[in-house]
Amino acid sequence: MDPLERLSSLFERFPGIGPRQANRFVQFLLRSSPSVRRELIDAIAAVGSGVHQCPQCMRFHAGAAKICGICDNPRRDVRTLAVVATDTDLAALERSGTFRGSYFVIGGTVSLASEKGDNLRTLQLLDSLAARSDAGLEEIILAFPANPEGDATCIFVREHLSPIAEVLNLTITSLGRGLSTGSELEYADPETLKSAFESRR
Amino acid sequence: MDPLERLSSLFERFPGIGPRQANRFVQFLLRSSPSVRRELIDAIAAVGSGVHQCPQCMRFHAGAAKICGICDNPRRDVRTLAVVATDTDLAALERSGTFRGSYFVIGGTVSLASEKGDNLRTLQLLDSLAARSDAGLEEIILAFPANPEGDATCIFVREHLSPIAEVLNLTITSLGRGLSTGSELEYADPETLKSAFESRR
Amino acid sequence: MDPLERLSSLFERFPGIGPRQANRFVQFLLRSSPSVRRELIDAIAAVGSGVHQCPQCMRFHAGAAKICGICDNPRRDVRTLAVVATDTDLAALERSGTFRGSYFVIGGTVSLASEKGDNLRTLQLLDSLAARSDAGLEEIILAFPANPEGDATCIFVREHLSPIAEVLNLTITSLGRGLSTGSELEYADPETLKSAFESRR
Amino acid sequence: MDPLERLSSLFERFPGIGPRQANRFVQFLLRSSPSVRRELIDAIAAVGSGVHQCPQCMRFHAGAAKICGICDNPRRDVRTLAVVATDTDLAALERSGTFRGSYFVIGGTVSLASEKGDNLRTLQLLDSLAARSDAGLEEIILAFPANPEGDATCIFVREHLSPIAEVLNLTITSLGRGLSTGSELEYADPETLKSAFESRR
Repeated sequence: MDPLERLSSLFERFPGIGPRQANRFVQFLLRSSPSVRRELIDAIAAVGSGVHQCPQCMRFHAGAAKICGICDNPRRDVRTLAVVATDTDLAALERSGTFRGSYFVIGGTVSLASEKGDNLRTLQLLDSLAARSDAGLEEIILAFPANPEGDATCIFVREHLSPIAEVLNLTITSLGRGLSTGSELEYADPETLKSAFESRR
Repeated sequence: MDPLERLSSLFERFPGIGPRQANRFVQFLLRSSPSVRRELIDAIAAVGSGVHQCPQCMRFHAGAAKICGICDNPRRDVRTLAVVATDTDLAALERSGTFRGSYFVIGGTVSLASEKGDNLRTLQLLDSLAARSDAGLEEIILAFPANPEGDATCIFVREHLSPIAEVLNLTITSLGRGLSTGSELEYADPETLKSAFESRR
Repeated sequence: MDPLERLSSLFERFPGIGPRQANRFVQFLLRSSPSVRRELIDAIAAVGSGVHQCPQCMRFHAGAAKICGICDNPRRDVRTLAVVATDTDLAALERSGTFRGSYFVIGGTVSLASEKGDNLRTLQLLDSLAARSDAGLEEIILAFPANPEGDATCIFVREHLSPIAEVLNLTITSLGRGLSTGSELEYADPETLKSAFESRR
Repeated sequence: MDPLERLSSLFERFPGIGPRQANRFVQFLLRSSPSVRRELIDAIAAVGSGVHQCPQCMRFHAGAAKICGICDNPRRDVRTLAVVATDTDLAALERSGTFRGSYFVIGGTVSLASEKGDNLRTLQLLDSLAARSDAGLEEIILAFPANPEGDATCIFVREHLSPIAEVLNLTITSLGRGLSTGSELEYADPETLKSAFESRR
């Protein structure tokens, strides 16, 4: 295949990229200097070789140690564990600076089509709970998006964790619902209004 | 002025209506039958003559009695009072079916430009609290939109109500924040994430 | 029915207005002074009584004379007649100041569902052509929108006018296609690019 | 710098890509198999080594010969030359199948800030005209976008080509303006309506 079309078709696989923008990326790289292309090639290679998954939280990181900087930080609160869907959600929580506990990236959400969670690292999470409990864990916070996939994942994970959580005396909670910043009552759905009333204070 | 332009310029004052849509409304009325225009004229006149404000919750209604159907309903919970900005917000809460107490429409939000709440019926609300307390009121829920105007209104109203609320032993609460239905963690602001963690359960 | 709901349901019939905006209009009129509602009622009534259709171009106008100001203007070019779908399209052409001939509002476009043009004033247009030809008409310009409905209307009207136009020696033209201001080649459809090449100069 | 952040910051330089999508690309590549990353690296390298500019039309291509497949095609019409801003615009015209002549990619548009066209290959185009004229060229079609940059480029290129075009007896034309497919009269700007009337037929 033509190298231009080949590169374009690879960019088309990128999330959210259609043929037009893929082609624009190719044109951008054509007009860029060889050193820019070199840099990009190196950076993609580095992500392949220098990045690895933290064996505790399962997020990708480029630290020298196997364990990532968050899991290795002695100042983080060992009593709370936030279970998140993706590295991106973990990063969003870190940026917000609201959570000081540790994380576990479960690797996605339950697919509504299959209603299965085979793709999730539920077993790996389960296996780690005894050790985490010994280390001081008290509460598992299910921090999934407030959409149907997130809700299904919440139910799925809670079901799988409940028996062991009970044995280890761990509480399982989920993020609270309510009015998001910017929400107007007029456009809020009944579920959100209900939660907003229930979590009033 | 030309009657078509006069009507168009009146429609332009309607909320959210620009010159193009105003003109489209005029064309729509031109093409409508005389009976449709007659109906519209009658309905506007009826709103002027047949609609009045409920002296208790201050919302507009067309009931035969002065007091509106919600305030007059003996089955509503007298222990909670939701203070809302507008009739529209009151209607949104009623539609959601989540709240069974009574309402007070304060008549808008604090303007961020002036930082004043002179336009609000704060005094009227204050004056009603002793009687409401005698009737069983325990909690005032400030149900304002989750935006800067709503937040400023919350602070403003709370400040004005606090002294009397303390005397009468009334709790003042506000609607809870958190993830709205549909929110993704990646796009949630820090404030929303913080509330979502705090109101977890 | 409740006067507020009745007015709201009338506003819902306005083009492009859903239940939420209809309700907002009602709230706006409730908060307006009686004089604003009075003015609106008068303006709607005036549109019913003071506005009439020009017997030549068929547009609605509020002039004292039966014939409208454009048709009555001796400085307009009698050689060209633009046939437009609606009063709104006529107004758009007038605003642009590009056309100095006379107009005929045919009253809509061919419906793609029925493929019929019964709603159009084709016969009325046909009947006027002999007199217009005597007065100097040379060219009929079909000025319909560049969309499937407009195209179908163009074909429909052209078919109905052709026999008489030939007899009277009138040319029938349609507006040119090409790149609209703001169009980029990358996003233009093949039809538009083809026209742009054909009408190059 | 962290390899993940380095790659993300390189993706942020891509046209139309912000930090969030750049991060999503990185996550996508992390989750992809090593072979996908390998393919991408190879394709970027191939674009650097296997792609070259056609010395006649200046577009990038990956053909074995120096001259590209369009310039080398004996069936293309030698009488018309379309001058386009970018490879992407050339591709759009080819896709539309409306033009059978040859192309010249001038390499961008006049910047409205500087009002200069130093970045354009105007001299190169000029230098080629005598030979093209000998080969049968009759008309140069300026095929720039219908926006202010495109208009400025049209004026700029026309000015530079005019003296030689006159000597060689070449016509210079530009793409026609008019209603694009989908345009409604109500939303068309006066310039577009004017062109639509002028190019009627």
